[in-house]
Amino acid sequence: MTTVAAYAAPAAKAPLERTTIERRPVGESDVLIDIKFAGICHSDIHQAREGWGTANFPMVPGHEIAGIVSEVGPGVTRYAVGDRVGVGCMVDSCRECDNCRAGLEQYCSNGGPTWTYNSVGADGEVTHGGYSQKVVVDENYVVRIPEGLQLDEAAPLLCAGITTYSPLKHWNAGPGKKVAVVGLGGLGHMGVKIAAALGAEVTVLSQTLRKKDDGLKLGATHYHATGDERTFEDLKGTFDVILNTVSAPLDFGAYLSLLRTDGAMVNVGLPEEPVNIQLSSVFGNRRVLTSSNIGGIPETQEMLDFCATHGLGAEIELIRADQINEAYERVVASDVRYRFVIDAATI
Amino acid sequence: MTTVAAYAAPAAKAPLERTTIERRPVGESDVLIDIKFAGICHSDIHQAREGWGTANFPMVPGHEIAGIVSEVGPGVTRYAVGDRVGVGCMVDSCRECDNCRAGLEQYCSNGGPTWTYNSVGADGEVTHGGYSQKVVVDENYVVRIPEGLQLDEAAPLLCAGITTYSPLKHWNAGPGKKVAVVGLGGLGHMGVKIAAALGAEVTVLSQTLRKKDDGLKLGATHYHATGDERTFEDLKGTFDVILNTVSAPLDFGAYLSLLRTDGAMVNVGLPEEPVNIQLSSVFGNRRVLTSSNIGGIPETQEMLDFCATHGLGAEIELIRADQINEAYERVVASDVRYRFVIDAATI
Repeated sequence: MTTVAAYAAPAAKAPLERTTIERRPVGESDVLIDIKFAGICHSDIHQAREGWGTANFPMVPGHEIAGIVSEVGPGVTRYAVGDRVGVGCMVDSCRECDNCRAGLEQYCSNGGPTWTYNSVGADGEVTHGGYSQKVVVDENYVVRIPEGLQLDEAAPLLCAGITTYSPLKHWNAGPGKKVAVVGLGGLGHMGVKIAAALGAEVTVLSQTLRKKDDGLKLGATHYHATGDERTFEDLKGTFDVILNTVSAPLDFGAYLSLLRTDGAMVNVGLPEEPVNIQLSSVFGNRRVLTSSNIGGIPETQEMLDFCATHGLGAEIELIRADQINEAYERVVASDVRYRFVIDAATI
Repeated sequence: MTTVAAYAAPAAKAPLERTTIERRPVGESDVLIDIKFAGICHSDIHQAREGWGTANFPMVPGHEIAGIVSEVGPGVTRYAVGDRVGVGCMVDSCRECDNCRAGLEQYCSNGGPTWTYNSVGADGEVTHGGYSQKVVVDENYVVRIPEGLQLDEAAPLLCAGITTYSPLKHWNAGPGKKVAVVGLGGLGHMGVKIAAALGAEVTVLSQTLRKKDDGLKLGATHYHATGDERTFEDLKGTFDVILNTVSAPLDFGAYLSLLRTDGAMVNVGLPEEPVNIQLSSVFGNRRVLTSSNIGGIPETQEMLDFCATHGLGAEIELIRADQINEAYERVVASDVRYRFVIDAATI
């Protein structure tokens, strides 16, 4: 066991504070990672505040981890000391079900994967995430960060990157396709970058035009305010894919009406409250309403390679660990452009 | 103009009665069809009773038409006098929009297609449907009924057949796939036949086990009562496609939970009332909620050819025209196995 410093929420809704946690010994197929950077995802806040139901405390959040391998188990074949690696939302899964075998570990049929934090691993221990100095992870749930990406800008890709890349690929965003990204936050800004790099024509749908200049710089061709009713008139039947990154309840009928025939609205935000959708007339033209939850391990590697090739790091605000609580407030207020990343050297 | 006998609803919710209507002269690309049989679709009742909003009266319903060509316009190239033909839900559309050009005339972007009845055609006249002796239709909206199908059993294919065939094909029902058909009525019984003929393993989900023997005879391998809570426990994560033919509001969350990863629930019934769907946790595993509205003209021909090849006529109860009102009551009470077809010789 290794004792490492970490930032933890001692109880639901309590501010995070510096503490120490134990990391397991490096096992047969484990790698020990010296964490360099950890992104702050809105879901960290949902969970630290028990917005998604009862959680495990103390909780060390963080599933956007970038670091350097500092030790490997005897059975490790993919990584060596010194390698630049990342860990995302999952650190284990059953590896036997259809979904795991298909590289869709996030949908593991045997009770879901072991999440990087606030989850219970095969050893019966609660997992702890990236707001810490080191982490021990089975190599099969570790991905390689290509040289073309800075580690700090790569960290958010492990959640925000894959969460947007996976549905954009699945629903065939690419040349000739029109993609709308709803919400220009941590997820949305990566959605714009990735959709544009895939060759799609990208529109941002945001409450106001406040971030319009940013949106266009990130790769969008169009930017519309959803607070303006004309937006929904003007864009009716326009999009092949709507990537909804907003967790708050929306008027789904209005957004669905913006889809072309066979268009898909993919929801990647998970609202704390159930939302109601009025079916009936909005469901014309074989429109699809669906969701997507991060992406599997093989696709996460594919996404990192794609981002490296296209120079797509996240836009980040690098913070010290003692700024985490302040950053949480700013995330809740949508006041971040576009992802807070903790410098793990300050933990 | 030709005066022909027909059965019409004189006003919303009024019983249908015998009357006469005018059919337009046979134009350049028109065919005159001597109607032999007309199916009764639940949507006839929705519209005759203004369940879907304000309608045009007097209304001659009927969009499951089978008959014989008795005259052709000078520009007609596809059909000749004596041909066995069918007309479904549409008799015209803009022919210029992306959807029309793609053979998806049902989703015509220029205000939708001209429906076979209760619609206004390009000539400004209200259309009248199949509960009549003759109809004049542009040849581009007429399909051929292959010799392998009886006309009376073919009539319901023009709506119930294509409405189930199109989404089953679109969502890849076939060998190795598990398909659930919700509801064993006019649509559902064709859904079972077609899904089984496509090679899928078919399960019927019906309120009770009352029609179980029929379901198995039609091609289903499994039959479960949705009134039994264990059904939803036992079948969790089972289906690739759920074809929902029920117009009444369902617990969509419960049905979505029966889908496998990437499974799709396709709704082909259109409820009179808006329904609410609780998103949140039900939307795991990239499940898809979507709908489908009949099918285009080319696919309707494909469906008829498929049904002829596989010997798939509808299961019908042939009635006289003076039994239409009684039949409507029985349809509403789900007391028909499985489609009423009017013998047009009795009109």
